[in-house]
Amino acid sequence: MEHVRAFKERIEELIDNRLFIDLRNVLASAEPEDIAWALNELEKEEYIVAYRLLPKGLAADVFVEMEPDAQMNLIATFSDAEVHNMIEGLYTDDAADILEEMPANVVRRLLENASPETRRVLNSLLKYPENSAGSIMMTEYISLQPNMTADEAIEHIRRTAIDSENVYTCYVIKNRRLVGVISIRELLLMDRSALVSTKMLTNVISVGTGEDREAAAALLAHYGFIALPVVDAERRLLGIITVDDAMTVIQEETEEDFAKMAAMTPTDKPYLRTSSFRIWLSRIPWLLLLMVSATFTGMIITGFESALAAQVVLTSFIPMLMDTGGNSGSQASVTVIRGISLGEIEFRDLFRVLWKEFKVSILCGLTLSVATFIKILLVDKLLMHAPITTLVAAVVCATLFMTVVAAKIIGCSLPMLAKKLGFDPAVMASPFITTIVDAVSLLVYFGFAKMLLGV
Amino acid sequence: MEHVRAFKERIEELIDNRLFIDLRNVLASAEPEDIAWALNELEKEEYIVAYRLLPKGLAADVFVEMEPDAQMNLIATFSDAEVHNMIEGLYTDDAADILEEMPANVVRRLLENASPETRRVLNSLLKYPENSAGSIMMTEYISLQPNMTADEAIEHIRRTAIDSENVYTCYVIKNRRLVGVISIRELLLMDRSALVSTKMLTNVISVGTGEDREAAAALLAHYGFIALPVVDAERRLLGIITVDDAMTVIQEETEEDFAKMAAMTPTDKPYLRTSSFRIWLSRIPWLLLLMVSATFTGMIITGFESALAAQVVLTSFIPMLMDTGGNSGSQASVTVIRGISLGEIEFRDLFRVLWKEFKVSILCGLTLSVATFIKILLVDKLLMHAPITTLVAAVVCATLFMTVVAAKIIGCSLPMLAKKLGFDPAVMASPFITTIVDAVSLLVYFGFAKMLLGV
Repeated sequence: MEHVRAFKERIEELIDNRLFIDLRNVLASAEPEDIAWALNELEKEEYIVAYRLLPKGLAADVFVEMEPDAQMNLIATFSDAEVHNMIEGLYTDDAADILEEMPANVVRRLLENASPETRRVLNSLLKYPENSAGSIMMTEYISLQPNMTADEAIEHIRRTAIDSENVYTCYVIKNRRLVGVISIRELLLMDRSALVSTKMLTNVISVGTGEDREAAAALLAHYGFIALPVVDAERRLLGIITVDDAMTVIQEETEEDFAKMAAMTPTDKPYLRTSSFRIWLSRIPWLLLLMVSATFTGMIITGFESALAAQVVLTSFIPMLMDTGGNSGSQASVTVIRGISLGEIEFRDLFRVLWKEFKVSILCGLTLSVATFIKILLVDKLLMHAPITTLVAAVVCATLFMTVVAAKIIGCSLPMLAKKLGFDPAVMASPFITTIVDAVSLLVYFGFAKMLLGV
Repeated sequence: MEHVRAFKERIEELIDNRLFIDLRNVLASAEPEDIAWALNELEKEEYIVAYRLLPKGLAADVFVEMEPDAQMNLIATFSDAEVHNMIEGLYTDDAADILEEMPANVVRRLLENASPETRRVLNSLLKYPENSAGSIMMTEYISLQPNMTADEAIEHIRRTAIDSENVYTCYVIKNRRLVGVISIRELLLMDRSALVSTKMLTNVISVGTGEDREAAAALLAHYGFIALPVVDAERRLLGIITVDDAMTVIQEETEEDFAKMAAMTPTDKPYLRTSSFRIWLSRIPWLLLLMVSATFTGMIITGFESALAAQVVLTSFIPMLMDTGGNSGSQASVTVIRGISLGEIEFRDLFRVLWKEFKVSILCGLTLSVATFIKILLVDKLLMHAPITTLVAAVVCATLFMTVVAAKIIGCSLPMLAKKLGFDPAVMASPFITTIVDAVSLLVYFGFAKMLLGV
């Protein structure tokens, strides 16, 4: 993104020197995504000036890519006629996205200035629940009839393409139902007088409006489609999800998973443009919650204070046991969380997953315990002359083994249970697993110490 | 993916009952991705039988999606003529992908049975480094000349589309150089006798063959393109990267990041089909490495054994301090790692990031310390009558504050330094940060304890 930064600096320079004609030319030849990125970085007065210089067609494309607060500020400077042109110039999915982010009074002004037809479509799109396939579909697509010839179909596309972003996949409608799909490539390759119905695919893969938007995007990615049709219960075509919107959904959901796995509430702005206060807000509830749960681990230690006082050397292994347990558990949990996200693992695989993690944990536990046993006897005892008996080494290694097994079992099963209960499995990642595994490993540790060392 | 599982069970049932005619019909009407998914789950004998029943065109599409070991087993059953048909039926990027995964003797057999032209193209594709844009491009695309009319261009596409998967974005070539790009939508919308040169975009965004494949995929996603051209130093068009391949790259790189952040070596097979031994191999080196580093934390505790023996209550706060430090650090590191991955954060932003994390850490540190101070005095001391002095509470809270600040500073800077030094920033995630922060927090803890409690 080096060139986008250079582009932004060039724009700032031109605004500072009030070279507006140069600025207009620079903007006119740039990509809308880059212009929006640069404008989002500027001050309010600056981006309003720059936006005014954009050619009409480009302005709408840039507007779509800007951040909600900037969009709101720009709308405030629009006349009613400009609002009308803007909303009519957008694809319905983009317009609905913008409406969702605006306060009620702005939404009212936008809808009042839209044409009745646009208003009807937008109102219906806004009714679909957030994160549903319906909420990300666009209503502009190419529809053909099965008894059109290839030539007629191409003529039809010529006449209607102006309204559609995606003309590459065409949908064949009969009696208002989706009966087939055909690509423009196929239309060009087939005999000009052959009927669309002879070459269309009739086994159309589609989703319902209520389907989760992440699942819809994953389906599109799985089949490598350029667009995915969205239908109602009667298989009437309501809209399509395009590949670029699906990629955005996948990217957003991935970032949300990363944030949740590191115990943060996802934020929607890029990091460098998010205020410190907002970042604090997204992090502090989780830190407080996890800190409170970590005090239980402290309480376990308090309960065994006399044992620790008798054998102070036991304390020095606590960090190693806790960290290894935490790491073993988060390996299992992250693997399972991603498997669930990608649709590779479902709840009914629970026992297959448990059995696999059990075998892996035995292998890992054995390796780590044997390595630790040798290390304690050779390095700590022989080289460093630490006051460690073989029995203490045995307690540490037995605990390590049990901790790894418990950590992997807990790590793989909690995300699956969370999913089953309707929670987001990503929340069951490292931080929570670590807190639980810490407590387990200490209980095991003191249990073995009591049993074998009699402390 | 529920329907894919049902599909696989149906196939197994048909094979078990030797109903091969039914099997052929079921397979013929399915999507190649689903067939491959199902075949990958079957035993070797079963998938060889099922593969033989596929219609010719479908067989190549299914072959591409199968796993490398299954591809190798299938090739072993092919005659030379079948190998020829298979390799000629593939797009060049898919064929090159397959060759990269095969052992040398299979590669030789595949290339020997390819046509001289295909062999030449494949040999040149195989020369591009792994993970480069060149390694994922396909050499089949539509090229037009600037002085063609729209009608001539469409006729040209009709004649050449049979060889190209992507006919939607056409590339305009003059004197062997890429001079423009035009969509088939634009060709259909423009005046039939107008020249391509009048409507093509001349500001073509492209990548070089040596560009990182992840960066190329991110560029395509950023602009919402359906294909991205790959050019050499003289701007000669060598191939294109299509949106479905870009999505696959982004998905693979994301999974690699998730794996690395949880201290695992990425595996290329789905979890449920990876053997326990392979999973152990991908996890154990990291667990051993992190365990060794955690022993340093243990050594710090050993060094302060006398202090702990004097004030045993100090031990009970160790888990809380370590966990909170680890969580604070991984929040910062995951945020920065994702920012780097998405191109939002670069090394030259180091001081902006440090300053932001410093402010956030002050806010988080203060909140957590105050909460802990109140909790110790109200809950632990008043309610539970724990033997904790106000001075001990002060030591714990001061340590907590310093730990959070240090954790956030370490967490945000290590990934950036790793990137600068040419390492993968994702490795600097939770596990490593936790290990380092653990040591820091204990040193601070015992430092404050010495100073304030004189232990």
